[in-house]
Amino acid sequence: MIQKLIENIKKTNAPVVVGLDPMLAYIPDSITKAAFSEYGETLEGAAEAVWQYNKKIVDAVYDLIPAVKPQIAMYEQFGLPGLAAFKKTVDYCKSKELVVIGDVKRGDIGSTSAAYAAAHLGSVRVGSQMLTPFGEDFATVNPYLGIDGIKPFLDVCREEKKGIFVLVKTSNPSSGEFQDQLIADTSSREGNAQNAFGQRPLYELVGEKVAEWADTCMGDTYSYVGAVVGATYPEMGKVLRRVMPKSFILVPGYGAQGGKAEDLVHYFNEDGLGAIVNSSRGIIAAYKQEKYASFGADHFAEASRAAVVDMIEDIRHALETRSC
Amino acid sequence: MIQKLIENIKKTNAPVVVGLDPMLAYIPDSITKAAFSEYGETLEGAAEAVWQYNKKIVDAVYDLIPAVKPQIAMYEQFGLPGLAAFKKTVDYCKSKELVVIGDVKRGDIGSTSAAYAAAHLGSVRVGSQMLTPFGEDFATVNPYLGIDGIKPFLDVCREEKKGIFVLVKTSNPSSGEFQDQLIADTSSREGNAQNAFGQRPLYELVGEKVAEWADTCMGDTYSYVGAVVGATYPEMGKVLRRVMPKSFILVPGYGAQGGKAEDLVHYFNEDGLGAIVNSSRGIIAAYKQEKYASFGADHFAEASRAAVVDMIEDIRHALETRSC
Repeated sequence: MIQKLIENIKKTNAPVVVGLDPMLAYIPDSITKAAFSEYGETLEGAAEAVWQYNKKIVDAVYDLIPAVKPQIAMYEQFGLPGLAAFKKTVDYCKSKELVVIGDVKRGDIGSTSAAYAAAHLGSVRVGSQMLTPFGEDFATVNPYLGIDGIKPFLDVCREEKKGIFVLVKTSNPSSGEFQDQLIADTSSREGNAQNAFGQRPLYELVGEKVAEWADTCMGDTYSYVGAVVGATYPEMGKVLRRVMPKSFILVPGYGAQGGKAEDLVHYFNEDGLGAIVNSSRGIIAAYKQEKYASFGADHFAEASRAAVVDMIEDIRHALETRSC
Repeated sequence: MIQKLIENIKKTNAPVVVGLDPMLAYIPDSITKAAFSEYGETLEGAAEAVWQYNKKIVDAVYDLIPAVKPQIAMYEQFGLPGLAAFKKTVDYCKSKELVVIGDVKRGDIGSTSAAYAAAHLGSVRVGSQMLTPFGEDFATVNPYLGIDGIKPFLDVCREEKKGIFVLVKTSNPSSGEFQDQLIADTSSREGNAQNAFGQRPLYELVGEKVAEWADTCMGDTYSYVGAVVGATYPEMGKVLRRVMPKSFILVPGYGAQGGKAEDLVHYFNEDGLGAIVNSSRGIIAAYKQEKYASFGADHFAEASRAAVVDMIEDIRHALETRSC
């Protein structure tokens, strides 16, 4: 699937991913009203509104982008109907040839982690049948439990040619609370951020482990194993780019969270690949921004398309003018 | 809900929790065959088998125990029908007055974390309605993203009187890969595990943060905010007991993973409370152990009851004979 991601990026010349993280507050009244009149003010009604909203956005932008990233929490909050809308969204995006990154941030151990890997990337045996539960192409994974939590995902990645993005340095303000803790540096790798006392931050060790895991799951040029590094910490991104040379970096935090295109160029390798930048609210709720307000709520999907065009242009321009 | 957990523990005199982590391989053929003949070898068929299996175990043990801990991954692997079986299990256990700990290990940031908190512990607004998506009493939460990921759960805990167990030191072999990394010690707390170089492990910092968060979410004597500390690391459990005096510790790893009752007494406070020990496979698949094999597959639920009785006796005995 890393090959398809790379092909899609080359085809669109757009290393971006649209985060399908719908909140009811984003969805225009016309859609919500229609859904509620059919299903009532129920979880089913909310899920129908989410699905209709997603579908219109995907229809408006799919030809411009290589991938989407539905955030499962936004569906899980609407219970079983919400998760049915998640599944419909995954299937629909795949039918449009988009690579689907399930932003599920799962992480457990042993057979439990294997169950998550089967749920999101693989298949499950029921009697004589092999069945596909959710069927995303990539999933995000939390590393706090160590390799016991990652290995079952690696096994599925190799078997199904799927991929993962491991949380390394997240984009939120408090990500440093644990991720930036300085630990003793026993590494011999070059170019890391060790200080005068031979210490380096935890996220760098996590990055090194990602690089090790990545080596065991290679596609042609990049690994099935990628990493999440927030756009809001560009200096750390620069270091982590070197630490994980064969991993794609999934970059949240562009736009609404403050990450700027010129800061993100260092997340890319010299081949122009190796990173994919996510925007969620900035795209799917574009019509609520002053810049795109003239589209109006009824033309929210066209506003999303305009925002995607602007985002791609912004990142292309930064990449073309970067000083290496 | 921490009050109800304490009441249930006192009523049963049993600080134990049964992990409802069904795998198809555990489920007797008679149940699986009946489910497949009704629904086919489908996700629905698997989910029906899981639900029937759970129901019989809960019916056999609910009067002995204060709480259950369904592991959502084991349901998620069967897709939407699996998650419907999860919801049915949660509802059924609540109808039996059991406290339900959703072992979901979710963790994200901001509005996404709020969506997970609503999904599992709270409610979600749809139009004029407030609806309950999954409705567990407690949820397990991953701390890797820092307070940004925890705060939305704390808000819901206060509002709904629900609770969380934050992963601090997990029971798996590789949990030390990141959790045991030595970091600079800037703490002034007594009794921690700092070494001669003023360093201490990351899990201890996470434990201190749990203690801080716990202080802001107090029930009568214990906090809504608990921690997960594996039974397989008793020395660390001893330290963490002191670091988080007001938190209940959820202890996985007893039995099948190797944790012994005599090692677990230090996870409890002197009031005999403060910890709850989980066993999953050791209870729900008891009939597959030599010790309980004489029950036979058809009487698997009675084997589970016998295993619960033995586990409670084992832990009671260890607590009664502990030297403080």
